[in-house]
Amino acid sequence: MNIRSPYLLFLGDAVDPLSIKMASSAADWCPELCVGEYALPGCKVSAGLNNISIDEAVQSGAKSFVLGFANSGGTLESDWIPHILEALEAGLDIISGLHDKLTSFDVIVAKAKELNRQLIDIRHPTQKFKTGTGTKRTGKRLLTVGTDCSVGKMYTSLSLKNAMDARGMSSTFRATGQCGILISGSGVAIDCVVSDFISGAVESISPNADEEHWDIIEGQGSLSHPAFAGVSLGLLHGAQADAIVVCHAMGRDHMRGLKDYALPSIEETIALNEAAARLTNSQAKVIGVSINTSSLDADEAIKQCAAISERIGLPVVDPCRHDIGVMLDGLV
Amino acid sequence: MNIRSPYLLFLGDAVDPLSIKMASSAADWCPELCVGEYALPGCKVSAGLNNISIDEAVQSGAKSFVLGFANSGGTLESDWIPHILEALEAGLDIISGLHDKLTSFDVIVAKAKELNRQLIDIRHPTQKFKTGTGTKRTGKRLLTVGTDCSVGKMYTSLSLKNAMDARGMSSTFRATGQCGILISGSGVAIDCVVSDFISGAVESISPNADEEHWDIIEGQGSLSHPAFAGVSLGLLHGAQADAIVVCHAMGRDHMRGLKDYALPSIEETIALNEAAARLTNSQAKVIGVSINTSSLDADEAIKQCAAISERIGLPVVDPCRHDIGVMLDGLV
Repeated sequence: MNIRSPYLLFLGDAVDPLSIKMASSAADWCPELCVGEYALPGCKVSAGLNNISIDEAVQSGAKSFVLGFANSGGTLESDWIPHILEALEAGLDIISGLHDKLTSFDVIVAKAKELNRQLIDIRHPTQKFKTGTGTKRTGKRLLTVGTDCSVGKMYTSLSLKNAMDARGMSSTFRATGQCGILISGSGVAIDCVVSDFISGAVESISPNADEEHWDIIEGQGSLSHPAFAGVSLGLLHGAQADAIVVCHAMGRDHMRGLKDYALPSIEETIALNEAAARLTNSQAKVIGVSINTSSLDADEAIKQCAAISERIGLPVVDPCRHDIGVMLDGLV
Repeated sequence: MNIRSPYLLFLGDAVDPLSIKMASSAADWCPELCVGEYALPGCKVSAGLNNISIDEAVQSGAKSFVLGFANSGGTLESDWIPHILEALEAGLDIISGLHDKLTSFDVIVAKAKELNRQLIDIRHPTQKFKTGTGTKRTGKRLLTVGTDCSVGKMYTSLSLKNAMDARGMSSTFRATGQCGILISGSGVAIDCVVSDFISGAVESISPNADEEHWDIIEGQGSLSHPAFAGVSLGLLHGAQADAIVVCHAMGRDHMRGLKDYALPSIEETIALNEAAARLTNSQAKVIGVSINTSSLDADEAIKQCAAISERIGLPVVDPCRHDIGVMLDGLV
C-alpha cells in the first residue's frame, strides 16, 4: 500500500456521528495529514475540520480523498459515486475502509485507470499470510482488548503510544482495523483476513524486535461478543501479549448490536483474556483498564475510575481525560 | 454449488497417506459416489478403490474429477495440470478443496470454458455472509470439538449421523470443511470464511429446524491450537451447541505442526469448550469423548477408553471400532 497524504475527508450527508468513524479518527489522531472535510447538503455531523470543496482541497495539497465512513454493513452508496469521480478528475487517489470494494465498481475503476489514480481498499488485505506458528518472538508486546466492540481500543492504543513516546520508550503502533491503518499508514484489517490466517497475520505485523521495544497492537471485538470473539481470540494468540489493557465503555446496556447480551464485568474480562493469552505467552498480564467515560461528567468519571481501581487493584483511567502513562510504571 | 457425482479420485504421485485426505474421506464415507481412483506412477498410497484411467472412469459414469489432496499450504502442483486438462477433455467437471483456486490457472479456465465444464473450488465460499446474531434458533445442535486439529471430528460427526439414523432420530450433517462438503454435497469451509463472518456463517448453515431435529455440526481446529483457536471459538459460538462431543487422538506428542505445544488434557478441553459455549447456549454440555485409537491394538483401545470414561464420567469410544450410539442415550 502506498497511501498518499494529506487527505480530504468525505462525510457525504451523514447524520450519525458514529457513521463517520474513519473521518473522526483521522481528524483526531493525524490532523496534520488532513486538509479539511467535504460534507454534502444535509450532512448533520462534522469531524471538526473546515468544510471545503474538492478543488480547494487540491489547492491545499491534498493527495487522497478518504471515504470517511464506517457504516454498518460496510456498503458503498451509489450517491457517493459522482463525488468519487469528481475527486479522481481533480487529481486525488481514493481511500476506502468499507467492506464493499472500490474496485468492484466499474465506473470508478475505468475513471481511475484513465487518469492513473490509485484506488485503495485499506480494509482488504493484499498480502498472502501464513498460518500462526505460536513461536516466541523477541521484543515486547502490549495488546488492547475489550469488554465489547467499539469501546475505545484504538484510542487507548494510540494514547499508550504517545505515553511511551513521552517516557522515551521505544514503541510502534500496530493497526488491525481500517481507521488505525489510515492513521498509521500500515497494518492489516484483521476482520477481513481469511479465518485460517488470523493468528498468522497478527504474528506477521508484529515481528521480532529489540528486547526493549514495545509493539502496541490494536485489539478488535471482544471475547464475550457472540459474533466476533473468534477474531479476538486469534488476535490474542497471535499477539503473544506481555501486557494487556482492558478497554470498556460506561453506560452500555448490552453488547454492541445484540440487545439480548449483557456486557461482561471488567473482572470477568480480565480473567478470560489472561487465561486465553497464556496459551502463547505464559507471562501475559492485564496491567490496567481504560474506560470511555464520555457518558459521565468529569468529577463522576474520576470517582468511578477510582472506585474500579480500588476494587481490582490496577490503574483505571479514561485516556481522553486522564494520564494513561500511569499504566506504564510497572513496565519500565 | 452443483456438485455432480460420481467421482474419479485423483491421487497424483502422493506418498503420504495424510496428503490424500480428500480422496480417503470420499472413499470411506461415500464409496457409492466413487467410480475409482487415478494414481500416477510413483504413487505409494491408495484410497482403497480400483486404480482406473480417466477414460475408464467416464465409461463407468463418472461426472467429476476430484483432486484428492489436502496438502500443507493447499497448493495446486503444476504437474497435475495435464491430468486436469485430460479430465476436462474427457467430459468431467473438476472439484478441488485446495487453497489455490482452479480458477486462478488461465489454462484450466480456458479449457473449462471452451468445453463448458464446471470448475468447483469447494473450499472457497461463494455466498455473502452476515455477522453473527447470537439469536437462539429452534431445533437442537451437536458440535464436535477437538483437543487438536485432525483428531477425527468429521469421522465422529458422520458416525453420530449414522447412529442417529439407526435410532430413528431426525438429523442433518453440517459440513464445515472441504472433505465434509464433498461427502455431503453442501456446507461451508469455515477456515476460508473472512474472519468477521465466522459465527454468522455457522448460524447460516444450521438454521431454525423442528424442535426434535439435530444438526450435527462438524468442528474445526481446537481452542488450544495457537494458530486456529479463533476459528474454533467462532464456530462454537455460531453453533449454539446443546451437545458437544470432544474428539481426541491417542499417541500425539504435540499439537499438530507445533512441536513446542503440548496437547491439553481431555478434562481441560471439556472445561474450556463448555465455558466458552455457554456464552450463546447456557445449556451447552459435553456428552461424550470420541478417540482415534488407531495407534493401539483392539484390547488396549477398549481398556484405555474404559479408563478415561471411569475418570471423567462420560461415554468414551472410538467410532471406528465401537458403537458411538451410547453417547445418544441421554439425548433421546
